[in-house]
Amino acid sequence: MQKGALLYEGKAKRLYATDQEDVLFVEYKNSATAFNGLKKAEIEGKGILNNKISTLIFERLKQQGIESHFIQRVSENEQLVKKVDIIPLEVVVRNIAAGSFAERLGIEEGTPLKRPIVEFYYKNDDLKDPLINNDHIEILGLATKEEVQTITDQALKVNEALRKIFDEIGIILVDFKLEFGRDKDGNILLADEISPDTCRLWDAETKTKLDKDVFRRDLGNLIDVYQIILSRLGGN
Amino acid sequence: MQKGALLYEGKAKRLYATDQEDVLFVEYKNSATAFNGLKKAEIEGKGILNNKISTLIFERLKQQGIESHFIQRVSENEQLVKKVDIIPLEVVVRNIAAGSFAERLGIEEGTPLKRPIVEFYYKNDDLKDPLINNDHIEILGLATKEEVQTITDQALKVNEALRKIFDEIGIILVDFKLEFGRDKDGNILLADEISPDTCRLWDAETKTKLDKDVFRRDLGNLIDVYQIILSRLGGN
Repeated sequence: MQKGALLYEGKAKRLYATDQEDVLFVEYKNSATAFNGLKKAEIEGKGILNNKISTLIFERLKQQGIESHFIQRVSENEQLVKKVDIIPLEVVVRNIAAGSFAERLGIEEGTPLKRPIVEFYYKNDDLKDPLINNDHIEILGLATKEEVQTITDQALKVNEALRKIFDEIGIILVDFKLEFGRDKDGNILLADEISPDTCRLWDAETKTKLDKDVFRRDLGNLIDVYQIILSRLGGN
Repeated sequence: MQKGALLYEGKAKRLYATDQEDVLFVEYKNSATAFNGLKKAEIEGKGILNNKISTLIFERLKQQGIESHFIQRVSENEQLVKKVDIIPLEVVVRNIAAGSFAERLGIEEGTPLKRPIVEFYYKNDDLKDPLINNDHIEILGLATKEEVQTITDQALKVNEALRKIFDEIGIILVDFKLEFGRDKDGNILLADEISPDTCRLWDAETKTKLDKDVFRRDLGNLIDVYQIILSRLGGN
């Protein structure tokens, strides 16, 4: 597969065309960003770790019947994915109160929620990715009511599957962010990445943070922590 | 009806017990506040105007089949209401983009929405009344899923009725905030007040603001503007 023109560069990944219309090259970058880009760093090795972790997770989801844009990993820091039009929504699923959610609602970080909840944030850097409700999604024309229902259902399914995957390796899935896209036939498809950049992951025994909060809150070496996740998932 | 002990003092009203268990005295204050209480003033005559306006609106809603906690006006600045347990939700209905909504979503103020939308804010001064979604309402235990549906339906019905009332007097109903409570049998009942403190009202011809934005944004004399609303509603 030929790597073609750069189509898009985000905070953590670059997307390239390939010689196939509906297939893209994803290159994972070493950039770490937090607080809507206010905190930034280049961390050698991060791209490789996230590419490998995301690959393992998309593969495991597929085994559990959950499709995504992922096709295959093609190098240390690259993978092939199906081309989709990304819906500008950050879809967050939460099992335990943490981060902005805990602050926003005055709930102590670490409090288990009585059921998993879904939140939508409008993916818009200028507006700082505001929390929005289902009516806002419709008004902004981001997705139809039916699409929002499909995305909500899928996000909760992904949560069930991910909880199993992480539970088996002694990790608590606190919360995570998904993105979805529309394929050429208009079908909703799970996209983006699933990695310690996009999940809050706590060690089940020690409650140590094994995710990007290590970078956000200056709690230690991000690479060491992401390596733990990769290793426990059976990768290297 | 005897005015009893002060039960609650909010930013704009005081609630007193009466000699009837399920009836309260409401006294409208002259305080004006904005930006979560950061901007404050005492404005002579404001309490009387809001008491009279709210009375006329609750009466007109009742004529259109919409029940509320309102019983009757008993003095210039007082009314009697049914006692309810207020649900700590600010229920906002919007017809046209304005204020925080316009800023939050990057939509120009004055843009008509393709349909009325409903928003919920968690009524909590310490947290600065954050926007929340339906899942948050459940997790916080503020209301059941069924109650949220009832409130949403009622809020949209109130919107239809209010739009008619204001349309007839040359005023555009841009958006407004409602509060609901539970009566002693657990039924959801429209409560609080409906006034230029809680509605955005624009003159249909000139688009002049005839509501609390006059105070928020220092656009003129609040009393003059509230008097226009009262007069057009047929009050004095």
